[in-house]
Amino acid sequence: MAISSLEYYLRPRTVAIVGASQKRGAIGNTVVKNLADLEFKGKVFCVNPRYEEVEGFPCFPTVKDIPEHVDVAVIAVPGDFVESAIKDCADMGVSFALILSAGFAEMGEEGLKRQNDILKICQESGLRIIGPNTVGTYNIKDKISLSFTPVSATNWLAGNVGVVTQSGAVGGTIVNIGAEEEIGFSYMFTLGNQMDLTTIDMLESMIDDSDTNIITSYMEAVPDGKRLKEVAKKALHQHKPFIVYKSGRSEAGQKAALSHTASLTGSNATFELVAERYGVTTVDSLDEIIDAAKAFNSKRRPKGNRVATIVISGATGIMIADNLSEVNHQLAELSEETKQRLREVVPSYLPIENPVDIASTLMTNPILYKHCIQTLVDAEEVDSLIVHLPIGVDMGGMKFANDIIEVANTTEKPIIVLTVGSEQSMGDVRKVLNKNNVSAFNSVQSATKALSYLLKYENVYKSRGELEQFELMNQSTDTFLKASTGPSITEPEVKRLLSQFDIPIPQGVVVKNHEELMQASVGLEFPLVAKIVSAEITHKSDVGGVILPIKNIEELNQAFETIRNNVRQNAPNASIEGILVEELVQGPFLEAIVGVTRDPAFGPVIMCGLGGIYVEVMKDVSQRLAPITEQEAMEMIQQLKSYPIFNGVRKGTKYDVEAFAKTLSQVSKLALNLGDSWSDIEINPMIIREKGKGVMALDGLITFSTDVKETVQQ
Amino acid sequence: MAISSLEYYLRPRTVAIVGASQKRGAIGNTVVKNLADLEFKGKVFCVNPRYEEVEGFPCFPTVKDIPEHVDVAVIAVPGDFVESAIKDCADMGVSFALILSAGFAEMGEEGLKRQNDILKICQESGLRIIGPNTVGTYNIKDKISLSFTPVSATNWLAGNVGVVTQSGAVGGTIVNIGAEEEIGFSYMFTLGNQMDLTTIDMLESMIDDSDTNIITSYMEAVPDGKRLKEVAKKALHQHKPFIVYKSGRSEAGQKAALSHTASLTGSNATFELVAERYGVTTVDSLDEIIDAAKAFNSKRRPKGNRVATIVISGATGIMIADNLSEVNHQLAELSEETKQRLREVVPSYLPIENPVDIASTLMTNPILYKHCIQTLVDAEEVDSLIVHLPIGVDMGGMKFANDIIEVANTTEKPIIVLTVGSEQSMGDVRKVLNKNNVSAFNSVQSATKALSYLLKYENVYKSRGELEQFELMNQSTDTFLKASTGPSITEPEVKRLLSQFDIPIPQGVVVKNHEELMQASVGLEFPLVAKIVSAEITHKSDVGGVILPIKNIEELNQAFETIRNNVRQNAPNASIEGILVEELVQGPFLEAIVGVTRDPAFGPVIMCGLGGIYVEVMKDVSQRLAPITEQEAMEMIQQLKSYPIFNGVRKGTKYDVEAFAKTLSQVSKLALNLGDSWSDIEINPMIIREKGKGVMALDGLITFSTDVKETVQQ
Repeated sequence: MAISSLEYYLRPRTVAIVGASQKRGAIGNTVVKNLADLEFKGKVFCVNPRYEEVEGFPCFPTVKDIPEHVDVAVIAVPGDFVESAIKDCADMGVSFALILSAGFAEMGEEGLKRQNDILKICQESGLRIIGPNTVGTYNIKDKISLSFTPVSATNWLAGNVGVVTQSGAVGGTIVNIGAEEEIGFSYMFTLGNQMDLTTIDMLESMIDDSDTNIITSYMEAVPDGKRLKEVAKKALHQHKPFIVYKSGRSEAGQKAALSHTASLTGSNATFELVAERYGVTTVDSLDEIIDAAKAFNSKRRPKGNRVATIVISGATGIMIADNLSEVNHQLAELSEETKQRLREVVPSYLPIENPVDIASTLMTNPILYKHCIQTLVDAEEVDSLIVHLPIGVDMGGMKFANDIIEVANTTEKPIIVLTVGSEQSMGDVRKVLNKNNVSAFNSVQSATKALSYLLKYENVYKSRGELEQFELMNQSTDTFLKASTGPSITEPEVKRLLSQFDIPIPQGVVVKNHEELMQASVGLEFPLVAKIVSAEITHKSDVGGVILPIKNIEELNQAFETIRNNVRQNAPNASIEGILVEELVQGPFLEAIVGVTRDPAFGPVIMCGLGGIYVEVMKDVSQRLAPITEQEAMEMIQQLKSYPIFNGVRKGTKYDVEAFAKTLSQVSKLALNLGDSWSDIEINPMIIREKGKGVMALDGLITFSTDVKETVQQ
Repeated sequence: MAISSLEYYLRPRTVAIVGASQKRGAIGNTVVKNLADLEFKGKVFCVNPRYEEVEGFPCFPTVKDIPEHVDVAVIAVPGDFVESAIKDCADMGVSFALILSAGFAEMGEEGLKRQNDILKICQESGLRIIGPNTVGTYNIKDKISLSFTPVSATNWLAGNVGVVTQSGAVGGTIVNIGAEEEIGFSYMFTLGNQMDLTTIDMLESMIDDSDTNIITSYMEAVPDGKRLKEVAKKALHQHKPFIVYKSGRSEAGQKAALSHTASLTGSNATFELVAERYGVTTVDSLDEIIDAAKAFNSKRRPKGNRVATIVISGATGIMIADNLSEVNHQLAELSEETKQRLREVVPSYLPIENPVDIASTLMTNPILYKHCIQTLVDAEEVDSLIVHLPIGVDMGGMKFANDIIEVANTTEKPIIVLTVGSEQSMGDVRKVLNKNNVSAFNSVQSATKALSYLLKYENVYKSRGELEQFELMNQSTDTFLKASTGPSITEPEVKRLLSQFDIPIPQGVVVKNHEELMQASVGLEFPLVAKIVSAEITHKSDVGGVILPIKNIEELNQAFETIRNNVRQNAPNASIEGILVEELVQGPFLEAIVGVTRDPAFGPVIMCGLGGIYVEVMKDVSQRLAPITEQEAMEMIQQLKSYPIFNGVRKGTKYDVEAFAKTLSQVSKLALNLGDSWSDIEINPMIIREKGKGVMALDGLITFSTDVKETVQQ
């Protein structure tokens, strides 16, 4: 939602605390005390029939007794009393209710019912709800806490990073551990059960917010995949890094997530595809959220993957080299010019290579370190720099830190500092660097990983124009599938669709009787194949519904009879629409599989692979969010482990990967045009002929999701 | 080497510092000052012609002027002066020289020569050398520093963890960051260029040392693979966890390692196989060395992979579930009894599942947390416990930490604590737990990973008896290969070897002329195959040296002529030993490949995979250190991605994996018996018939390493 719609939630003029308490430590007291402690500028109205005042603020028996309009009502009463409080809020025209109380959907059926009752009230009245089952919201920028976490136990540092999470505990942890790394925050939203306003709403507002440059999120469920895609795209276009830690990835994690905040976690594989397309930085832990935010906090960005590194210990150089390899970065090849400039200060007994190992000379020559760093960032062959600084405050580490900061101010290339050592010795050095937007890390792994986030993100950002192409392809018409009544549509119908999208299919005709069969045989070239056509038969061979090869008219006549008899016997209740007679395609060719699955949250996902054991046994498939461009389709094919087979590894035959890529792109467009009633498209086999000779879809199946099927059958 | 041999290095009665200096900050001063600061109990003799005393110790012009026997001479002079100092030490019968100076093998050819000159002196005199290019040794237990790292900049905590590294910087970092996590150390050795004494020597002594229970190591190179295997085995048998971070894994890392401490990094893939067999805990960073040491520091060990977890936030439970899945652990299924015991304290509105989410109730009920933890460790269905404790000191965290410690003292099951939050808030809580040997971590990832180290290690420890079997198999005779003179030995010779090890081969005979051919044909059943036999021809088909199928006598005669002519024409210089005539094996069968490669450091490594595209394109292979038992061979086969094909995924045929496993084990024994002159064994194809019908080696090749070949040819 637009940030402006949240204005009176983020900076309320009036706040009511329902369930305010005089008892220190109680939730209803802490919320009030937090506002007092942070010197909240608006008006505070407490609500509790037992008190006349709480923490110096006036207290009223009910919300209805408050003499003014309330921007935000914070609900801190036990679950059983929430509904009546919300009713009062709705009646009084309160704008937002933040329900801290637990005991709703996360508690099972009964709780869900209670939650839905409240939702109904809010939908009727226009009251917007945050929660229930949440710890609330921090407006760190303006120092306004709408939360029961005591501000004394928090570590607020104002800055430009927004936090949106379901979990309250996680939101608070991110803010606390971030502040310790000198990362400042604008807002923290915890959404709990997301009954009304969701993480997606808050993410959207953060993108709009001019004070938020980096958006971080911990999610267990994606409440609306389609909107998440839009949010991710918007963030990309505004060049605001979007960092997500998505949990509930494993089966065990999904199960645990189901019982927590009562939400489905959605398909993680598809989420990763969404992230890849829209440049969302996905991380694997809370620490990595902070690492990524730290890296993005500096405005310096790499143009490529060539990294120079200057180290005080050879071992660190080796560890850096190893870890860079793991994130697809390489050590820059230093030019002779760069080496000469380094040699101006590096003693002759030290070899000059990358990693530049200056050993302990930095302690004896006060200008050497800075000169080397400056030289390396100035070098054309270097895209970013990792600087090793294991020197603590007691050994003069601050001087070196300042040298690095000074050089960083002269360059647009990222400088990542490795402040490895004990916290006692290195902590302050690291903090000074972070404070000055030079990202410092205490492990090689986190440093190199963080560096890789930057390049990956910038690469997607640079190619964001391509997303426009996908938009243009993304015009759903939903006109094709309405006529079907079975669990799937028939092969000739699928082939007609494929053909409309320029996907080659064999020459063929559907015939209903001998007369039509004879007519058909005139236009087709033997050998042929004959297949049963029935919406109720998805596995045609299993019922004896396929015969090949058919070499002449006699065999064709016989095949027609045999199939009819087989099907009558093996599937007596299936309605037969006819028999499909097609030219039999001759080799050499590869058999590929193309599939599209409709993820209920994120939409169609296309996959491809070589047929048979490659997909079934070796699980060798590539996937992308549909639609895809031909270029992206080519990348999919090249990512297959079996790709060398397309290039003729065995018999030397090269197959038509260009035509295959084009067809994959077309299938992805077709999927977009089918609307929302189908669940799977499978083209198997899709044959790939020799280079230049194209591809052909030999069989195709479109199935409906169970829900839709039932709807259709009614 | 035996720990007793190091006694006077570790606890010298007399130390000489060659290059002692009065200049504070200089290496030659710091070494002396360190001894003074730690109140070294032995005698200190400084060596420098310029001074009469340094830091209160007497100073002599040369080592030769020292009036007493010197146990350890610390060499802190520039590289150019080291040789003469070592000569003096050798002449005076000094026991150990620790060469801190750099400028040797790590600097290239010239430095290597200098190093070798010194090595010669030490080999002639019996003087043992540590270094050069090292920061030295800490005896933390007895507070003796033989190092130029100022003790003021270190953080020494005595304990039972030994550190052995090449890199001095890394050794110091491990000790410093370890101490901060309350991990105490016995000794730290940094070996630098490992000219004489190596990491392996020191690792060996640490295993002997009764004060060291856990051994940690950072390695770039493995100086002696065979000895490392022995050390790893010894550590396992003594039940001392051995934790290794091996760097130089990537190509870039290996290149960087080559220039650092001038050492080859060895094969990482093989190193991993060694680690797997002998229960070495391999980690990926310095932090993980500490994490692992922390986990092993507690004596509590899991019996299985069922984990119970108690959390204060649902999100943490989900993250734990995800991360446990990644390390092959599962959430324990709680019994009704356990649930009932939990319910005694957990309020009825909270559901009881695993993760046990007690939300904020731990703050309001002082006995709840401890009761739950005790209940879960007591539960039979639970092997280990992860406890979430995000409560800082200010919120009463210490009380909860003490509750956990008290429960931990009642159980042999691991309790891992997750102290997630800012260092300021959680640091002290974590430290108290660690100090009491209850491992506490501030991230879910490191906690679950550390837990997995324990189980993996204990599982190998439990099956250590199997290692004895490998020992028995490990009787090298080296009698087979001496006769050969070519780059490989001939197929019939290889098959004879295979046959000696009970590996089935086809019926066949080598013939030299038509007469022999006729004789041979009598005993063989058509169809046949004929192949050229020549030690100089490794690719027989390429020269037209293979003909099949041969259906009768006429074709056999013709094949004999054709092969002879083909070979004369295509390989005129090859000496022909005859033609191998074999029965042609008929299907159905699978074609597998079995190979053995001799790793120069670690010895033979056996691999298997399905032939053709599976190995070539899909890179689907399993590897193990040879020899292997039949059981291990079966695991190798089952680990193949293509394993379902053995079980008849496509045509329903089940193939004889048992016979394949038996044969793999036999090939691995054969490899052990071939001695050290070969480089590769390849059996391709090894055919696997239907279940019960066995396997057969259709072709075999043994090649020699280039070095050996040259030796043989001389």
